[in-house]
Amino acid sequence: MNVVAIILAAGQGTRMKSALPKPLHEVGGMPMLAWSLNAAQAVGASRIVTVLPPHSETTQSWLGDIEFAIQENARGTGHAVLAAKDKLAGFLGVALVMFGDTPLITAATLSQLTQCIKDGADLAVLGFHAADPTGYGRFICAENGQLNAIIEHKDANDAERQIDFVNGGVMAVACPLLFDLLDAVSDDNASGEIYLTDIVHIANARDHKVVTCKTDEAEITGVNNRADLAKVEGIIQSRLRSAALDQGVTMRAPETVFLSADAIIERDVIIEPHVVIGTGTHIGEGSIIKSFSHLEGASLGPCCIIGPYARLRPGTIAGDGVKIGNFVETKNTNLAAGAKANHLTYLGDAMIGEQANIGAGTITCNYDGTNKFKTLIGDGAFIGSNSALVAPVRIGANAIVGAGSTITSDVSDDAIAIARGKQKNIDNAATSFRARAQDKKQKNNNQKK
Amino acid sequence: MNVVAIILAAGQGTRMKSALPKPLHEVGGMPMLAWSLNAAQAVGASRIVTVLPPHSETTQSWLGDIEFAIQENARGTGHAVLAAKDKLAGFLGVALVMFGDTPLITAATLSQLTQCIKDGADLAVLGFHAADPTGYGRFICAENGQLNAIIEHKDANDAERQIDFVNGGVMAVACPLLFDLLDAVSDDNASGEIYLTDIVHIANARDHKVVTCKTDEAEITGVNNRADLAKVEGIIQSRLRSAALDQGVTMRAPETVFLSADAIIERDVIIEPHVVIGTGTHIGEGSIIKSFSHLEGASLGPCCIIGPYARLRPGTIAGDGVKIGNFVETKNTNLAAGAKANHLTYLGDAMIGEQANIGAGTITCNYDGTNKFKTLIGDGAFIGSNSALVAPVRIGANAIVGAGSTITSDVSDDAIAIARGKQKNIDNAATSFRARAQDKKQKNNNQKK
Amino acid sequence: MNVVAIILAAGQGTRMKSALPKPLHEVGGMPMLAWSLNAAQAVGASRIVTVLPPHSETTQSWLGDIEFAIQENARGTGHAVLAAKDKLAGFLGVALVMFGDTPLITAATLSQLTQCIKDGADLAVLGFHAADPTGYGRFICAENGQLNAIIEHKDANDAERQIDFVNGGVMAVACPLLFDLLDAVSDDNASGEIYLTDIVHIANARDHKVVTCKTDEAEITGVNNRADLAKVEGIIQSRLRSAALDQGVTMRAPETVFLSADAIIERDVIIEPHVVIGTGTHIGEGSIIKSFSHLEGASLGPCCIIGPYARLRPGTIAGDGVKIGNFVETKNTNLAAGAKANHLTYLGDAMIGEQANIGAGTITCNYDGTNKFKTLIGDGAFIGSNSALVAPVRIGANAIVGAGSTITSDVSDDAIAIARGKQKNIDNAATSFRARAQDKKQKNNNQKK
Repeated sequence: MNVVAIILAAGQGTRMKSALPKPLHEVGGMPMLAWSLNAAQAVGASRIVTVLPPHSETTQSWLGDIEFAIQENARGTGHAVLAAKDKLAGFLGVALVMFGDTPLITAATLSQLTQCIKDGADLAVLGFHAADPTGYGRFICAENGQLNAIIEHKDANDAERQIDFVNGGVMAVACPLLFDLLDAVSDDNASGEIYLTDIVHIANARDHKVVTCKTDEAEITGVNNRADLAKVEGIIQSRLRSAALDQGVTMRAPETVFLSADAIIERDVIIEPHVVIGTGTHIGEGSIIKSFSHLEGASLGPCCIIGPYARLRPGTIAGDGVKIGNFVETKNTNLAAGAKANHLTYLGDAMIGEQANIGAGTITCNYDGTNKFKTLIGDGAFIGSNSALVAPVRIGANAIVGAGSTITSDVSDDAIAIARGKQKNIDNAATSFRARAQDKKQKNNNQKK
Repeated sequence: MNVVAIILAAGQGTRMKSALPKPLHEVGGMPMLAWSLNAAQAVGASRIVTVLPPHSETTQSWLGDIEFAIQENARGTGHAVLAAKDKLAGFLGVALVMFGDTPLITAATLSQLTQCIKDGADLAVLGFHAADPTGYGRFICAENGQLNAIIEHKDANDAERQIDFVNGGVMAVACPLLFDLLDAVSDDNASGEIYLTDIVHIANARDHKVVTCKTDEAEITGVNNRADLAKVEGIIQSRLRSAALDQGVTMRAPETVFLSADAIIERDVIIEPHVVIGTGTHIGEGSIIKSFSHLEGASLGPCCIIGPYARLRPGTIAGDGVKIGNFVETKNTNLAAGAKANHLTYLGDAMIGEQANIGAGTITCNYDGTNKFKTLIGDGAFIGSNSALVAPVRIGANAIVGAGSTITSDVSDDAIAIARGKQKNIDNAATSFRARAQDKKQKNNNQKK
Repeated sequence: MNVVAIILAAGQGTRMKSALPKPLHEVGGMPMLAWSLNAAQAVGASRIVTVLPPHSETTQSWLGDIEFAIQENARGTGHAVLAAKDKLAGFLGVALVMFGDTPLITAATLSQLTQCIKDGADLAVLGFHAADPTGYGRFICAENGQLNAIIEHKDANDAERQIDFVNGGVMAVACPLLFDLLDAVSDDNASGEIYLTDIVHIANARDHKVVTCKTDEAEITGVNNRADLAKVEGIIQSRLRSAALDQGVTMRAPETVFLSADAIIERDVIIEPHVVIGTGTHIGEGSIIKSFSHLEGASLGPCCIIGPYARLRPGTIAGDGVKIGNFVETKNTNLAAGAKANHLTYLGDAMIGEQANIGAGTITCNYDGTNKFKTLIGDGAFIGSNSALVAPVRIGANAIVGAGSTITSDVSDDAIAIARGKQKNIDNAATSFRARAQDKKQKNNNQKK
């Protein structure tokens, strides 16, 4: 049975107070809309139609090849689904009606809903047991499981208000039945809107089989403002942290560690408090990520020691036992096994050999303002502190660069390179320097008066 | 009607275990006492008298021109208010009795209290509904709103203990009635103290109109120790974060972001986890503040990208789209539109031109040990990595400074300046250097034995 | 009365998913097993026998001189205690049966248990009032305090399930009675195991005096997986933070500050949000530790200002009013009163004199790839920015090092040392340099096509 997903994303999202359309606000490193699209794809939707408002060029362009329909003159959720009607003319199968602002919905839940239709139901509505059902539409179910009605909070009597199994909004509906039902929905209400939930009533009146599926409340958390966005991010982080702990990662303070969904963190990795792990990161077994580290697109072998205050940017690849220490930034750089860059260093577009030691304050000058160039450092090389390596440049294996050097030409294996000024000491000169500086200060102060 | 605020701050605060007087401990970036003073001023108090203990010179000097009275031989809250009696001889109007250790009280609440007196009440007492009323004085109110009595917890019967509307301590009282009532309060009790709350009983006995006002429990949180201080700071942070989210700021993890009350953060700003925003900060629309950044007194235009690990100090001004990256400190520095300082840099007392690129490891040497000097960098200039710019110095527009240079003289527009030693390579020298180093180690080890 | 502790640590700990044995996983900076050993020692245990599984060489080697017994073919907790029987043949006194994975148990609690035996009880079992007793063994106590039975959750009737005073596992038992009782325990149950708790039943049948002690639930938190480990760490941190607050330390956001158990933090120290304080740290009165700082093995005098982003490593000793600022790392370095290192600096194996000023970007080159050497900087010396000091080297008192210098020879008191290349300006050269760079880029792009 074919599955189509209709993702409703036509709301104005004014409570976000943003120039960015609501569905493009990110949680867990991806736009909210991407979460809905991914879930729909994961459940095997052969087509996805996103319903957008007029003037939604930014979202349309983000969608690329994915179909969309425009809801002109927004008049309710049912009206929004109807915007997709023409696109789906002739479609036979299951329509999943989803939302662009509930990114936590899982493929498992959507799959449960579509299965209901495959098993013979005409309409399946997702519900959840609300901790506080105030404000939600209550599910009125028969003993056989038929969902007889959804009673809005304001219309519910006292007995109905006791019901905590409530409407989550998401539905699976047989097609083309969905549009037949919607065509029968009236807009004869205070706001003149066409409500999607009204199809439950009509389906019952026509003796269709209407069933419910259950999920937990977190999964249908909707995002209407930035506080909701933070709440959803918190739920995602909490899931990612639990998963990492389950897989044998030690985090002293998981609540201070931020993970991306695609991070691969092997067992016996230790992550200290206050760490950010961005997308595309792989951390090998037994590595330690110390406090205040920030990793993105980095791939680490086993037993590396990173941080504190290490910033690993995309393209960082580290072999066994590499050490990257405090105030060190790496980007597009490969460090072979046992290499060390312990302090105050920038390594960009570089290849660092095994057991090479990069001294404090080393800078690879990889950019001339126009082009980027590579720095190659051989196995066992020792780069003295406060050195600048002007790329393109090659430092040979076991070579030594003297502290404070600016290296512009290649250095052979086993050679020593030094490039710095000769030291000149001027006895007693400090005293007179200070006297002159004091004079200057005095003069300056006098001028101010 | 004139308003005077009497701020009680005569407690010894011994549980703070501090050399600093309790009212001067800071929350939300200001001494607690300043919060009370600000609230009193905001509600239009024409005079403020702070009641201090003897030997309170530090607090007196902090108060500057603001009046204070000394409570000798502390004998209760009523006694503390009486310390202000002489100062307020002849005053006609409303006296607000406040505390120096409840910094969360708002002007809105104080205004409600004074309004009661303006509306004809003689005494208005602030109360709140306590989650757990144990220990608090219960409000016994008549149907017409008259506050008949405050029954202390230890004196309350079972029925009275069920009452959760309790005394918050703060009062507004008609003057000079306040002092008439206090003069009638007896110190005939176990501790020989004069309790301020006893005026409620006396006012009732004399048929005065005594009313209540209501606030929430958080607002009257008192600070007696450092844990309370942290609790109050937490409430303030929570309010500031909510306000920022409401105004369209994205924070993935608001609980890890610390804000100052005066920070201006425009909409569509993204603040990543683990960020500290100090006083005097303005962040323009669409800017991104990455993790582990620390801003104070910085003013950023739109679409800047800051951090991770950027430290912006007072006097940092950045134009459109400026980038300040990892391990960069700026102070008293102006960066024009499109300027970049991406890594390991210190910019102090500098003017950076449009689109200028400051290489990794650049240091402005703004201080000679006595005086501070300015560094000027022109539009489109390129400062090579690991350079020191010895101020006062001017780098011209579109000029280039070679990597590893120490620049002490001005560089003209479009010029290249280089100031570094010539590179010398010594073939095969590393091998013998290492051999000598090993010898030294061996010798050293032998000496240790 | 002699006390022996039997620490059960023979579980496989498979849910830790770790190559490291469970008892060696750390909380609060120490292996869990060390916490149990410390508590046993603190309560005066003259002997400690740790029960380990076969193939536990790592743990055995960690134990060093401490006795252990091997439990072959694990068959329950009672069976584990029996593994220590031979070692304790002839022992007369109290045996404390403890666990290697409940690190929060305190000496005070263990002392309470042993006291019960000293006071004449034969067996004392530790219990606690569980917030949710589901799953725990319920204590059935007589009016005289005798513990009649422990009923497992699955065997309890409805009335028994109401009991919230439950078994915490830890026991004190008179010896050699312990082993007599254990010998009587049957393994005739579904899993064929010998349960330690069964001795309660047998002791009652033999009319021994069996009593209970009470602790709080947190104290017996067991660690079975990494989430438990994080939970225990959270409890430890929460205790350490409360203790610091009680002692007069200000923390704006205690939940973001991580402390070690041995840290000494004097009163009126201010610790800003996001700080990690490691082992061996002492912070003097009135010092300020700014956000994003990381201290380990550092000893600070009064009124120091540290951070933000300061990393103090072991062997850092700072006198009165020392300032260590952003992106500065210190290790094995002594800074005398009033010394400053405010930015982007690495100080290793150094002695810094009073009031010395270490400029931004200064690096002590303390390592030649083989040996470490010392850097001595005199009182009042001024090290210009971006300097490298190649150790061993001595900078005299009040000497000045010019910015950008690499200093390899000693500098006398009051002397100025400069070691840098001479500046050369090439007019208009930047324009042609850019043109050549553009050409290169173009050529490069063409090659890619």
